[in-house]
Parts: sequence; C-alpha cells; structure tokens
Amino acid sequence: MSRQFLAEGLELSGGDYGIAAVVAVVALIALVIGYFLLKEVLAAGQGTAKMQDIAKAVQEGAAAYLKRQRNTLSIFGVVVFLLLFALPADDWSERIGRSVFFLIGAVFSFTIGYLGMWLATRANLRVAAASRESGGREKAMRIAFRTGGAVGMGTVGLGLFGAAVVVLAYAGQAPKVLEGFGFGAALIAMFMRVGGGIFTKAADVGADLVGKVEQNIPEDDPRNAATIADNVGDNVGDCAGMAADLFESYAVTLVAALILGSSAFGASGLIFPLIVPAIGVITAVIGVYITRARSNESGLVTINRSFYISAVISAVLCAIAAFVFLPGSFAAFGEQYANDGNPAVIATVAVIIGIVLAGLILKLTGYYTGTEHGPVKNVGKTSETGAATVILSGISVGFESAVYTALVIGAAVFGAYLLGGAIALFAVALAGTGLLTTVGVIVAMDTFGPVSDNAQGIAEMSGDVDEAAAQTLTELDAVGNTTKAITKGIAIATAVLAATALFGSYQDSITKALSTIGTTADGVKSFIDTIVSPNTLVGVMIGAAVVFMFSGLAVNAVSRAAGAVVYEVRRQFREIAGIMEGTTRPEYGRVVDIVTRDSLRELATPGLLAVFAPIAVGFGLGTGALAGYLAGAIATGTLMAIFLANSGGAWDNAKKLVEDGNHGGKGSEAHAATVIGDTVGDPFKDTAGPAINPLIKVMNLVSVLIAPAIVQFSVGPDASFGVRLAISLVALVIIVVAVVISKRRSTVISDTPAETQEPAKTA
Amino acid sequence: MSRQFLAEGLELSGGDYGIAAVVAVVALIALVIGYFLLKEVLAAGQGTAKMQDIAKAVQEGAAAYLKRQRNTLSIFGVVVFLLLFALPADDWSERIGRSVFFLIGAVFSFTIGYLGMWLATRANLRVAAASRESGGREKAMRIAFRTGGAVGMGTVGLGLFGAAVVVLAYAGQAPKVLEGFGFGAALIAMFMRVGGGIFTKAADVGADLVGKVEQNIPEDDPRNAATIADNVGDNVGDCAGMAADLFESYAVTLVAALILGSSAFGASGLIFPLIVPAIGVITAVIGVYITRARSNESGLVTINRSFYISAVISAVLCAIAAFVFLPGSFAAFGEQYANDGNPAVIATVAVIIGIVLAGLILKLTGYYTGTEHGPVKNVGKTSETGAATVILSGISVGFESAVYTALVIGAAVFGAYLLGGAIALFAVALAGTGLLTTVGVIVAMDTFGPVSDNAQGIAEMSGDVDEAAAQTLTELDAVGNTTKAITKGIAIATAVLAATALFGSYQDSITKALSTIGTTADGVKSFIDTIVSPNTLVGVMIGAAVVFMFSGLAVNAVSRAAGAVVYEVRRQFREIAGIMEGTTRPEYGRVVDIVTRDSLRELATPGLLAVFAPIAVGFGLGTGALAGYLAGAIATGTLMAIFLANSGGAWDNAKKLVEDGNHGGKGSEAHAATVIGDTVGDPFKDTAGPAINPLIKVMNLVSVLIAPAIVQFSVGPDASFGVRLAISLVALVIIVVAVVISKRRSTVISDTPAETQEPAKTA
Repeated sequence: MSRQFLAEGLELSGGDYGIAAVVAVVALIALVIGYFLLKEVLAAGQGTAKMQDIAKAVQEGAAAYLKRQRNTLSIFGVVVFLLLFALPADDWSERIGRSVFFLIGAVFSFTIGYLGMWLATRANLRVAAASRESGGREKAMRIAFRTGGAVGMGTVGLGLFGAAVVVLAYAGQAPKVLEGFGFGAALIAMFMRVGGGIFTKAADVGADLVGKVEQNIPEDDPRNAATIADNVGDNVGDCAGMAADLFESYAVTLVAALILGSSAFGASGLIFPLIVPAIGVITAVIGVYITRARSNESGLVTINRSFYISAVISAVLCAIAAFVFLPGSFAAFGEQYANDGNPAVIATVAVIIGIVLAGLILKLTGYYTGTEHGPVKNVGKTSETGAATVILSGISVGFESAVYTALVIGAAVFGAYLLGGAIALFAVALAGTGLLTTVGVIVAMDTFGPVSDNAQGIAEMSGDVDEAAAQTLTELDAVGNTTKAITKGIAIATAVLAATALFGSYQDSITKALSTIGTTADGVKSFIDTIVSPNTLVGVMIGAAVVFMFSGLAVNAVSRAAGAVVYEVRRQFREIAGIMEGTTRPEYGRVVDIVTRDSLRELATPGLLAVFAPIAVGFGLGTGALAGYLAGAIATGTLMAIFLANSGGAWDNAKKLVEDGNHGGKGSEAHAATVIGDTVGDPFKDTAGPAINPLIKVMNLVSVLIAPAIVQFSVGPDASFGVRLAISLVALVIIVVAVVISKRRSTVISDTPAETQEPAKTA
Repeated sequence: MSRQFLAEGLELSGGDYGIAAVVAVVALIALVIGYFLLKEVLAAGQGTAKMQDIAKAVQEGAAAYLKRQRNTLSIFGVVVFLLLFALPADDWSERIGRSVFFLIGAVFSFTIGYLGMWLATRANLRVAAASRESGGREKAMRIAFRTGGAVGMGTVGLGLFGAAVVVLAYAGQAPKVLEGFGFGAALIAMFMRVGGGIFTKAADVGADLVGKVEQNIPEDDPRNAATIADNVGDNVGDCAGMAADLFESYAVTLVAALILGSSAFGASGLIFPLIVPAIGVITAVIGVYITRARSNESGLVTINRSFYISAVISAVLCAIAAFVFLPGSFAAFGEQYANDGNPAVIATVAVIIGIVLAGLILKLTGYYTGTEHGPVKNVGKTSETGAATVILSGISVGFESAVYTALVIGAAVFGAYLLGGAIALFAVALAGTGLLTTVGVIVAMDTFGPVSDNAQGIAEMSGDVDEAAAQTLTELDAVGNTTKAITKGIAIATAVLAATALFGSYQDSITKALSTIGTTADGVKSFIDTIVSPNTLVGVMIGAAVVFMFSGLAVNAVSRAAGAVVYEVRRQFREIAGIMEGTTRPEYGRVVDIVTRDSLRELATPGLLAVFAPIAVGFGLGTGALAGYLAGAIATGTLMAIFLANSGGAWDNAKKLVEDGNHGGKGSEAHAATVIGDTVGDPFKDTAGPAINPLIKVMNLVSVLIAPAIVQFSVGPDASFGVRLAISLVALVIIVVAVVISKRRSTVISDTPAETQEPAKTA
C-alpha cells in the first residue's frame, strides 16, 4: 500500500487554511449567482390565468409530496444519526462531527432537491408563457437554461461549501467527518431518486394506460384525473430527484478525493481536491452565461457548445492550479521518493482524464440515444416488424452502449491508476474531481429537460398556446430527452470513480483498524490474504444480485403504483358524471394523494436493502466478502444503470422518430409498437436506472463506515463470531421483512375486487 | 492456501487404479444401456408416409447444418490444438496429453450433440406416430423419455469414460491433461449452443413474423417456407446444443473436482470424484427406467418423481461410498491434522449439498416458470393492460428469480466452502459432483421438451393426427417447456460450482508458476497482494461487460438472421405461384440453407470474444485483473443467464395460459400481448441465456491455461512488458475486428433493397 507512504503531517498550514477559506467564499459566491439566476427566472411573464391555475396545482402537488417525503425521511435520518454514534471513531469530536455532518449532508441534499422542484414548477409556467411571445424560442430556452443554472449553482455551491467547512473545522480529522457528510447526501438522494422515480412513472404510466389506451384521449388532456399527478411527477422525479442525485454525486466524489488526498499527502492533500471543483464553479458560471440560443441551430448544439467551452477552460485552469499548488517532485516528501514522478503532472493529467471522460460519455450517450444516429434509427426501423422487435433492438442498444460506456469508464479508472504511481488511488479520485468541474453545466443541461416537458404540459392543458409556440416547446422537449440521458451517464461515471476511490479507502480503513488493534504486519497480511478466496467470489455474486434485486423492486413498485392510479382514474370516469364531456373537473388531488402515499411506501424496501445488505454481508461473511460485494455491485451496477438509461432513452426517441412521420407516423401500427417500447422504457430510464447511482454510493459508504467495526469483532480482544452473526442476522431479517411486506402489497392489489378494475364504459 | 498441505504423493496405488478401471467400465456400461434405449426408440412405429416425408426433411436439414458446423469448428479446433502447445507444461508428455485430450473433449462434445440431434429427429416422428395409437399418451411419453435417457446415458458415459481414462493414463499429471479435456468440451459446446441457439430462434422468429403476423396462417403451416427450418432449429438448438452443453457441464465439473482432489489429497484425490458420478450413472439408469406415465397425473409430476427418487438414492450411495473410500480423519495424512475434521463426513455433506441444490433449483425454476404458480399467472394477468406491462412483469420475474437462484447457489458454494475446512475448495468441487449425479436424469428431462415440440410440429404439418392425439402432444409440449427451464438452471449452477473451484485452481496455478520461477515466499505474497487493487475492480467491470456484450451479440445475431428469413419467405410467397393455395410446395431447403449460413457466420464473434477477452485482460492488465475479470463474469453471468432463461420461460407459459382460455383466450388482445412477450423471450431463453453457461467455463479454462504464461512474462528471467502487451493487443485486435465485421453485417441487411423487404400481397 505504497500510496500511504506520504501520510504523515495531519496539520494544515496557515496557507492551506487560507486557500480552504477562499474556496468556501467561492462556494458562497456560487450560491449568490444562483440566487440572481433564480430572480431572473421568476421575473419572467407568467402567461394566462388558466396557465397559472394549472401551474399552481402542480406546485401544490409537488410541494405536498416533498413535505410528506421530508417527514418520512426525517425519522429515518434521526435513526441513522444515532446509529452512527455506535461506530468506532478516534474520539468524540470525530464521532459527533460525523453524525452532525451526516445530518448536514442529508439536509443539503434534500434542500437542493426541494429547490430544484420549487423553481422548476415556477419556471415551466414562465417557459410556456415565453413561448407565446415574439422571439419566443430564444426567450423560452433562456429561461429553461437559467433555471438549470440556478439549480446547478446551488448544487455545486452547497457541496463545495460543506466540504470546505469540514476541512476548515476538522483538518486532519476531516476524512471521517466527510464520510458522514457524503453518506447523508447519498442516502437522501437515493430515497429521493427512488421515491421521485416511482412517483413520476406511476403517474405517467397510469395516466397513459387509461387515457391514451382505454379512453383514447391525448396526453395531458385535462379530462384525465392523472394529468396533474403526471406533471407533479416530472418535477419530483426529474427535478427534485435529479438535483439531489447530482448533489450527492458531487459531494461523494469530493469526499472520496479529500479522504484519499489526506491519505496520500496528509492534511495538505485536503486542499488541491477543493481547488479543482472551485475552478469548476467559475467555469460553470461561464457556461451558463454563454449559453444563448441561436435561431439557426438546434438547442442541443447550443448546449453542447457551452459544455465543451467550459470543459476546456476547466482543463486549462486546473493545469495551472496543479503547477502552482503542487510540488514538482515527490522529493519534497523525502529524497527517496525523488524519482516517483511529478505530482503536478500526475494531478493535471488525472483531472484532464476526468474532464475528457465527461466529454466521451456525452458523445457516446448522444450517439446511442439521439434521433439522428444509427442506433435509434434502427430501433425506429424495427417498429415495422412489431413491438417485439422494438423491444429486442432497444435492449441490444442498451447492452451495447452499456458495454462501451463501462469500458470507457474502466479505461479512465485504469489510466488514472497507472499514471498515479505512488498516489494511484488519489489520481483516480482526482479524475473524479475533473468530472466534477462539469457538474454545474450538467445540472443546467438536465433541468432543461423536465422544465420544457412541463411547459409543454401546461401549454397543452390550458389550450392557451398557439401552433408555433407548441412547436418550440416540442423541440425543447426533444433536446431535453437527450440531455437527461447524458446526465445519467455522467452521474454513473462519478459513481464508479468515487466508488473505486472509496474501495481503496475501504481497505485503508481495514488496515488502519487492524493496526489500531495491534495486529502484527504478518497478521495484516494474512487477514488481507483471506480476501482472495471463494468467499470473495460469493460476495461478488451477492453484490451483483443486489443490483438485480434493486432494479426489479423499483420496476415492480412502478407497476404496482401505476395499477392504483389506473383503478382510481377508471373510478372517476365511472362515478363522476360529466368528466368526459369536460363539464366537470376530475379530482386531480386524489390521484396525487394516491401516488404520494404509494411511492413513499414503496421506497422503503429498496432503501432498506441498500443500507442493510452490506451490513449483512460484512458482518456475516467478513471483510473479504464485503470487498467482493462492493466490486460486484459497482461493476454490475454500472452496466445495469447505463443499460436501463440508454435503452429507455432509445425507445423514447424512436417513438419521437415515428411521431415525426417516419415508418408510418402517428397512429400507425409502427407507432403503437414504439409506444409499447417507450412504456417499457419509462421505469427503466426514470426509476430503476438513475437510482443505481446513489445506490452504489450508499453501499460503498456504509461499507467504509462499518469496516472498522467488522475488524473489531473479527480480530483482537473484541473478536466474537456471535456478535457478528447477530448483527448480520438482524440486518438480514430487516431486508427479508421489507421484501415480504412489499410482496404482500402486490397480492393485495391484484386482489382488488374485479369491478374496480374494469375500465369505465364511457366511450 | 492450507488446502495444499496434503498434496504429496502423486502416485496412484494399485487399488486406486483398480477403482478407476471399474469406473471406466461403469461408464462403458452406461453407453451400452444408452444403445439399448436408442434401439427401443427406433423400433417404435413411424406413422404415415406423409409424416415420414416431413421428418426426413427435418433430419436432412439438421444433419446438413451439423456437418457444416463440424467443418467450421474443425478449423478452429486445429488452431487451438496447436496453440495449446505454446503454453507452459511440466514436460512433453503433459503437453501432448493436454492437446490430444483437448481434441478428444471437443470430439466427444460434438458427438454427443450430433447424437442428440440424430436421435431426436427420429424420435419426434415416432412420438407423433405413437400419439395416434390407443394408450397413445403413455406410449408417446415413454418414447420421448427413453430418447432423453439414451442421450443422457451417452452424456454421462462419454464424460466419465474420458475422465477415467485420463486418470488411468496420466495419474499425477492428470490435472493438466484434464484442463485440455474440459476446455475442448466447453469450447465446442459453447459454439454449438450459440450456433444452434441462433439457428433455432432465427427460424422460429422469422417463420412467425411472416406466417402468423403477416399472412395470418397458423404455426407449422406447410405453406410457410420457414417451417422445416423452424423444426430443424429445435433439433440443432434444443437437442444438439443442449446435449453438448450438458456434456460440457458434466466434463468440466468433473475436471474441476479431479484437479482440486489431486491438489488436496495428491493422486489418490483423483479417485473419489470419479466414484460419485459413477454412482450417478447407476441412479440415472434407475431414474430412466422408473419413469412411467400414469394416466391420472400430469407428465411433470411423473418426471419430478423420478428425479427426486434418483436424487435420494444418489445421496445414500454417495454417503456409503464416502465412508468406505475416504479416511475417517485427516490424521492419515499426518498427526498434526488429526483435528481438522472427518473427510468422509465433509465429502458426504458436500455431495449432498450439490444434490439438494439441484432439487432447490428445480423447485425455484418450476415456481417462477410454471403455469400453476403466482409469477406466470401474474404475467398472464398483466396481458389485460397490454404488451408493455407483460414485458415489464416478465422482466421483474426474471430479475427476481435470478436473485433468489443466485443466492441459493451462493449459499451452496459458501456452505461447502465453510464446511470444507482444510479441503474447502475440494468440497466446493464435490458439491459440483453431487449435482452431476443428477445430470443423467436432467438430460432425459430436457430432451423430452424438443422431442414433443417437434412431434407436435410433424403432426400439425402432416395433418394425419386426430384431435385427441394433438391434445396429448400439446400437453407433453407444455411439460417440456418447464423441464427445459429447469435444465438451464441446473446447467448454470454447475457453471458456478465448477468456476468457483477453477477460480481456486487459477490461483494455485499462479502460485505454482511463481514457485517454479523461484520467487521467494515474500515475492509470492506481494504478487498476490497486487490482486487486491483498483486494477482488480476494473477487471470485475470488464468481466461483467463481456457478459452483457455476449448477450447483446447473441440477441442481435438472432434479429439479423431472422431478418434474412423474413425476406426469403416473403420472396417465395411473391415469386412462387400457388404456395398460398397449397398447390406448390415452397422451397424449404433454401430457408434452411440461409439460416445455416447465417448462424455459422454469426457464432464467430461471440466465440472469439469468449476465447480472446481473457487473453487480452490477463496479459494486458495482469493476473489480478484477470481474477477480477473471472469473478465479474461468473457473478454477472449467473444472474444474466437465469434472468434470460426464466423471463423467457415465464413469457412462454403466460402465452400458454392465455391460449388455455384465460384473460380472453386465443385471438384476444391479451393473447397478442403475450405473443409479443414470447417473441422477446425467444432469443433470451434459447440463444443468449443458455450460451452463458459454456461461456463462463470457456473463459475460466482459458484463464487457468494461460495463467502460467502470464506469470512467466510478469516475473523472473522471461519478464517482458513488451511481450505481454503484444499478446494482449493481438487478442484485442481479433475481438475488435470480429465485432466490426458483425456490425457491418447489420448495415448490409438493413440496406437490402426495399422491394425485397416488402411483404407479398397475397392475402
């Protein structure tokens, strides 16, 4: 473990404190800029009263959901807050810091999610309104992108500020406290991704099954009782969930870099990983402000240009920072290291690897999910031979893109690792911070999607928007589809980089715990040797299995919740007279309530699985199996996440291709086939797929946190197989009970009396 | 690596030779019994001239395909035969033995596949004929099961005979030679699974797309030019591919047990792993002969009863054998081992774990794919809300069943490992041999499926079978669906057990190679330490990615080949007058030729990927990354294989549920939805899924074979990064070229002139 050879001084110098303080100020500036962007968005025109009415219903529904989710998660948060105290730490300051910053990470994560939703539900109205004015396209696009800019600034500002404060306050003890911060962020983000993902797709699928399929009324038709819920879903899933997820990606990657930086360079290694994302803040501001729609180019070109410009600026500034702040040789740490390479060069190249990786994922995802490239065109073509071939070709696209994306990510990890030499793991983490410099722009790109999607919904429902404006909104929506897929690719890449780095710090943590107990060097060796055994292989298999299980649970949850929506909408059509004629308003609120209740109930099982599975494996089968578990979960999780995201994206855009008049156009059999593909893809790309990213991080952080406790009960005076088995069994029982409960729920729904399951005969 | 402590004597005692000779004789007896079963099948009545005509066309098509496949594979086999000489070995005798037994394994694998096809294409005619007689159900079932019995006896007979001969001829050097034998079997089986899988599903999907969907004529209608190809496909895929696959599972598991047995107990450890499957031969004979259809119970009950009876007999006999042939204490190997447990008890429990595992998989698979249980009923129910929900629920079933099956397999591995103590890995391998005792019955069960399926096809096409007989054949076909899914589960379980054992022997092989080079103990330690690094994690990710890629390639290959069938059948309908009226016979042979050509072409890319990916990873990234690669491939491969097999099985049987009159019955929208599910499931369950089992074994054996060479070029006098890089790059280039060629093929097909793509307007 040569990378530890430099870890000596755990004191920050005065200069280091100064830099960390500057970074904190940069983070605050980002928040201020975000505030101004937010003001600009809110200042835009709000359209007709009818449009405002609809927007208000969506705002209220989304706020109500997030408030209930906050209450649910608060309980969970407090329990974990207390449990964290039970885990080993150096002293009470560290122990308290870890728990407190767990809460802060959790609150930040929720806050940024809430902000994303709050602003999006206001911005969509304004985008819809702007599309009606002259020069509407440019105005609408500007509002949508500024909305994303505000959320993006909030994301990077809060993440960077939190990390900088921890470094300032805890210096050498920062790593343990940062584990808490990252864990809080990841845990809440996972719940928001899962809950929001279930909400949005349950409402969407439920609305489509009754509206489009049974009653033959268009999407977003106000006669459909699930329409408002569908629009609320876009905001709590694609906005709140996504923002929290990206915040967590940002925080955890930064945390991993800081932990490994301190492990490689001592406390002064805490500084450079702060500088890189601070540079990212600056370039994100540039990126947001230079994004201006041009009338003669597609929105995607505009957004991509901003991305590439800010990526290049980031790379240049990071290189400069590396040469200014890092020594030119490892000799500074002792003459014997003089030939170990140039830290400044290593850091520069590592950061650039991360930035280039972001660009490559952008390209790959665009290729596999964009309507203008081969794969989606091919899926569209297969619609001529029916739904089965659409499904098969979409799955192939997903598999293929997952393989190439995973290989690119793997190459980046391996490149950084090879390059890093003595600081190999730190180099991997730095590649992660390189990716982070693009997060500001990425959030801005992603928020673009749901805001335009919702603007289109409001326009449709109000009927107050003319043909040209509708055209504008449709174009923006299509652009949003691709930007959404790109974000998911980048998010999963941060998961792999952070996880690889954390995988290293997991081992560190074990070695350190062993040395605390006073095991000899030989003892450490033999302990680590047991990691290479069939035991580990079983761990790898369980890790891969958890990813499959989590995905299956998420897809199932959507089906169940969508079923409840279907029954309710059918009931309203049947029992409330005048809905179909448009004389009576359906009870939108009831559907929102049902989906809110169901998605909060459904998120428990996958959430508990994520937290307790590593505990069951770690205490039950040991640290070697847990290492294997993490490796299996990371590898399979990466492939599964990209597969789900990209096949979903390809189906969605293949449908758009057909709707644009290819292969028979709207209403043809080919169209029906692509609608089936799109419906299958919905829970893939918006529920199961994106939730795997925080899942990986949660499982990784849980493992890092519990590693010392596992060691404590495995060797030395506290060693006790009984205690380990007991902890493992408790965790297992929690998982089993959660799974059984959600199984029974599915029985209850299919036992709903037949009459409530029948479609209303109104047509 | 304590399990090696016993490995001293590499000499077989005279008694050991005697036992091995007895085992060889038992193997020959199995072949003789198989011959008598075969005679019995051939002696049955052959029905009408029309039926014989059709059967003859199928026989000729299948034989033509396998002959062309033999020619293609011969070239490949000779190349590998020569390449094997380049790999390190102790002396020339070992080197020659390894290559020669590679060829023998390959020839055996092909032979058993050919036999399976040859007999099935004759048995289906006789089953169809028997169904017309009085007491037809019992007679038909008896012929179908005896056919399977003949193939099963051939499988276990050849596998056991080969292994016993190697042990007799090579004694202490047997392990290396066995690696060659297993590799030959696995490699050919993989190609036969992939090629046969592509053939059967391309013909099936192609026939359905034009016949059922476009021309609205029933399945197996003689006017469809692809009908004969479809029936040929069942035989080359489900019979030949399956038989070769199970032979390879048998051979490789046995090889793994023998390798680890000799590693644990020296040459005498080669004996017990031979005794266990010899017992399996005896119980398989009992199982086949006690299977008698009763008129008042379903065929599945009959078959399951035979399975359980023979499993119990196996367990009892194995326990007796363990106490007779194994010492009661490790003290026999030195007083210091006196307290290491009782070898006889350990071996007995391990074997029973394997047998119980087979039973559990049978139960689990039956639950998830059988029409009488919740999961398939639920998939059937979702057909009421359309194809999208059918697809989603089927995917959920697949994910869920994959998780539970993987966990059961993992528990078996872990249980055997924990139990094994000093001989942990050997215990895992013994659990594998426990599974093997059920293979004879399993093959008999599996062959049942395609034979009844084809019998139904012949009956349908000839029109010479009455209502009652058709009913009998339909029932047998449904039973066959579940037995097929069960076999796949068992096959993948053998893959995991063998792979885990081989994973251990991979490390053994590295340690041994290191000690040959003269590395010190510390050197070995530090070399093994590098296994635990992010490098390994990258390996895990690549291993998982290869499974995704392989699956995607297989699914894609089916789509492409099915496309070619569609164009040809459309062409015949358009250009040959009188087909639709039934006055002219379509050119069946042309479709068979096209599918033969395409499937042989398509199997190259996945095949090359399987062989060269471990070479690229091992030489390029080192032994640690290769260990990770194997772990990733095993874990993800297991889950993916079960997911694909069971979701496919569930869709197929959900369709049958609807066809039995549920949810609207045949012709309803619900039926159309399940047909889409079934079509998606076809390449899942019959092409990609089953091919993953031999894929895992091929990759494992390639790794074990090349491990010493990697070590040779990594440390010691021959160490050369250049050589390693060169080998890795050559392997990589081969993969890339293969992928690019198959990519270009897909372009060529979609560029086929539009007129040949149009359906004929005959209706």
